[in-house]
Amino acid sequence: MYLIIVYDIKVERVNKVKSFLRQNLYWIQNSVFEGEVTKSEYNYILSELKKIVDENEDSIIIYKFRTDNAMKKEIIGIEKSPIGEIL
Amino acid sequence: MYLIIVYDIKVERVNKVKSFLRQNLYWIQNSVFEGEVTKSEYNYILSELKKIVDENEDSIIIYKFRTDNAMKKEIIGIEKSPIGEIL
Repeated sequence: MYLIIVYDIKVERVNKVKSFLRQNLYWIQNSVFEGEVTKSEYNYILSELKKIVDENEDSIIIYKFRTDNAMKKEIIGIEKSPIGEIL
Repeated sequence: MYLIIVYDIKVERVNKVKSFLRQNLYWIQNSVFEGEVTKSEYNYILSELKKIVDENEDSIIIYKFRTDNAMKKEIIGIEKSPIGEIL
């Protein structure tokens, strides 16, 4: 399945979220990640994110699609190169 | 069609982007809007956003779907109520 993850995380936890997501997905914009995952990778990502965040202060939205063919993408302005983001 | 718009905009322009998008879509997370639009509404949104942003400094990603049935959504933590956001 294909994921788009957007987050709004308090500053004290944001780097932890970002570095976890970087291991699993592509960094697309300041607080947006994307990528193709298996069902078990998805479950892993979900459970790890739940451990990191404070559910009373932070917000993460995970959009799931069967494939990335389901959506088209239009970018205005700066475009991060996902390929360069293997840090 | 259904849109998810995520943005990373310099502080001097972010309120302009936010208030424009609020007129047309639902505010879902700090820098995320969603909503169903017609083709002509989509074209209007795209052209207005291009007028507001600085394409060298800002970034907006517009994800387009035929319908919102194409995606499932999982939320961790705080969830904004789209219905309350008619400001």
